[in-house]
Amino acid sequence: MGQDSYKVVEGGSVTTPKGFRAGGLHCGLKKTTRHDLGAIVCEVPAAAAGVYTTNIFQAAPLKVTRESIGSGGALRAVLVNSGNANACTGEQGEADAYEMRSRFAEAIGVSADHVAVASTGVIGENLKMDKVRAGIDGLPGKLDGGLVGAEDFCQAILTTDLVQKMVCVELELDGERVSVAGAAKGSGMIHPNMATMLGFVTTDAKIGSDALQTLLRQATDLTFNMITVDGDTSTNDMLVAMASGLAGNRELTPEHENWAAFAAALRYVCEVLAKAIARDGEGATKLVEVRVRGAQSDESAQAIAKTVIGSSLVKSAVFGADANWGRIIAAVGRAGQPVDPATVDIRIGDIVTLEQSRPVPFDEDAALEYLKGDTVVIRVDLNMAGGEATAWGCDLTYDYVRINAAYRT
Amino acid sequence: MGQDSYKVVEGGSVTTPKGFRAGGLHCGLKKTTRHDLGAIVCEVPAAAAGVYTTNIFQAAPLKVTRESIGSGGALRAVLVNSGNANACTGEQGEADAYEMRSRFAEAIGVSADHVAVASTGVIGENLKMDKVRAGIDGLPGKLDGGLVGAEDFCQAILTTDLVQKMVCVELELDGERVSVAGAAKGSGMIHPNMATMLGFVTTDAKIGSDALQTLLRQATDLTFNMITVDGDTSTNDMLVAMASGLAGNRELTPEHENWAAFAAALRYVCEVLAKAIARDGEGATKLVEVRVRGAQSDESAQAIAKTVIGSSLVKSAVFGADANWGRIIAAVGRAGQPVDPATVDIRIGDIVTLEQSRPVPFDEDAALEYLKGDTVVIRVDLNMAGGEATAWGCDLTYDYVRINAAYRT
Repeated sequence: MGQDSYKVVEGGSVTTPKGFRAGGLHCGLKKTTRHDLGAIVCEVPAAAAGVYTTNIFQAAPLKVTRESIGSGGALRAVLVNSGNANACTGEQGEADAYEMRSRFAEAIGVSADHVAVASTGVIGENLKMDKVRAGIDGLPGKLDGGLVGAEDFCQAILTTDLVQKMVCVELELDGERVSVAGAAKGSGMIHPNMATMLGFVTTDAKIGSDALQTLLRQATDLTFNMITVDGDTSTNDMLVAMASGLAGNRELTPEHENWAAFAAALRYVCEVLAKAIARDGEGATKLVEVRVRGAQSDESAQAIAKTVIGSSLVKSAVFGADANWGRIIAAVGRAGQPVDPATVDIRIGDIVTLEQSRPVPFDEDAALEYLKGDTVVIRVDLNMAGGEATAWGCDLTYDYVRINAAYRT
Repeated sequence: MGQDSYKVVEGGSVTTPKGFRAGGLHCGLKKTTRHDLGAIVCEVPAAAAGVYTTNIFQAAPLKVTRESIGSGGALRAVLVNSGNANACTGEQGEADAYEMRSRFAEAIGVSADHVAVASTGVIGENLKMDKVRAGIDGLPGKLDGGLVGAEDFCQAILTTDLVQKMVCVELELDGERVSVAGAAKGSGMIHPNMATMLGFVTTDAKIGSDALQTLLRQATDLTFNMITVDGDTSTNDMLVAMASGLAGNRELTPEHENWAAFAAALRYVCEVLAKAIARDGEGATKLVEVRVRGAQSDESAQAIAKTVIGSSLVKSAVFGADANWGRIIAAVGRAGQPVDPATVDIRIGDIVTLEQSRPVPFDEDAALEYLKGDTVVIRVDLNMAGGEATAWGCDLTYDYVRINAAYRT
């Protein structure tokens, strides 16, 4: 159905879908006065799905959230703190994550296994639970069904992200207006820490937990799993989706005639958030998009796109506005994928730099001008088969080094 | 036999093993007046072996060198230019590489298939063959069997490396003194280019081409293949070994009682060069060594060590003298290897920061002091089995970004 099946809701947020309220406050985990504890709450049990980091060292909240979603596929709320990742914190860390869950469940009057928890921030330090408890007790009073609540929530999940990231789209299903919205935080560093991606999707569509899980996984593979800031995978990455079912559509299943339309809307929400995370990568000055086509398969194109977007040399060249196609082809060649070394085309923006693997003279001034922009698109065509993929990342800058070299004080 | 079987020759070089001369000159491929064309020549056909980049886009000289070594396992010379990688240069590039080979073979009076060629520098531009031809014609007059010739050669293979890299060891085989020496260039950038590793090993040991190939591959896997500057693999990486056989030892085979001793000497030469390349990585201020033990297998330990050494977050933290073990364990956890999340120890220098996966309070001042040094050793013990490996790299600095963001002018 394509993009016509949904449209962006200006000013929409995670509270736009029916049934959701959100909020945030400062409980004292961050040294600044920015919010550091937030929640999204649904007035009914929402069908829920989650995807989690593949890192072997998974933080305590991931275990707890998996349990909640696993116990019946429904959530009433997700509670998030920033300023402390509750990772590598042992048994105390697990106990703290469970306590966050049960205390917030009690505060809003739902059962504990209807609450998911997420954390981001410093790792290896136990949570200051006195502050967390006080925050949890105050949070229900801050919940709001409008943009204020959503923005408070968005602020509460940020670490050193520079901008809040949210999006909302709507589409019609069975004559009913259905909204799909999302909020995310990206790769910010807070002492001593790593990049953490947290994403939250709300929708009022009626859809079962398993179906939602299927669509969330598909969308993630094509969006959040196609971005890279520095190749590191956090202990805390988590994406949770909640569907209130209050829109009034018939339940979405693969047989529903609008299944693909809803999938496209969900994917779009995830893509907007993923690109926002890439653009706001640590120290980034621009969004870089790598489109690969003509590959042996989509998976092969994905691997190549991710290798190019992850190359420190390509990222540095983009920062320097250098149309350095040599680094692009070198990355293509080391991706471990089938590539015909004689048939590769490379374009930077619309500028052809390599055709059938041979350099093409190009206008360096035009390339420089293009690369100075805030979005850079690199196209690689392998001219072999029909596989294609798109990946997103950012440039590698002095500020990346400055941010990450900072001593933890 | 260990390190006792060989000793370092102070002032030794690729011309120390019997039969070798070397030299270099400026032919005009580099804009500076530094040498950009060099050669090592052996007075007899030397048993030869080579290992090459795994990048799909292999530069023309690699094809030619493979042919030379493949045609009979012997070399009389290797000719190297810097300033131009002769990569992505199509049929003209191949013709140029063949012409370099045949012209130099004629200049020194040997057959063309006894000559290897290597190039490093800008990619996608054809060689200025008029300059190369004049250089080749003048090179035989510059060859010298002492340190001067070796240093001229070392200078000729550098791009933006800051220091020359050479080493020589000697050991006794069958009562004869045998030397093993090497020279290398590392990860320097020259406009518009990528990191290229070139290595050249000379020895006067008597050893067949196949045996030398076996030992060179083994040594490479534990040394050159265990370093990373930025994770990018060049189109031009090449390591060539030549054994003149003039030392007078009985031919080295796996049955020779000193086979292991010679292997250790060769590995040491490769390790010294590999570490020198890592320490001289673009923008690097220190050498970082990651030692992993207790892994399921050596291969598993290698994968983990390379993931840690390649992490931009770990590299930035080392630059900032930040004892950020959280980034180390996160890298361990995403290496895709068997890891027990409950049994990991991490030491930075001698400072224990994590024991059985739990944070250990440590003296931050002592850690800061240690991390300010010019060599940083990170030890990871998985406490699972006996697999171990060591990898080398460098820190990620402002200068890395500066060097690689520079516009190609």
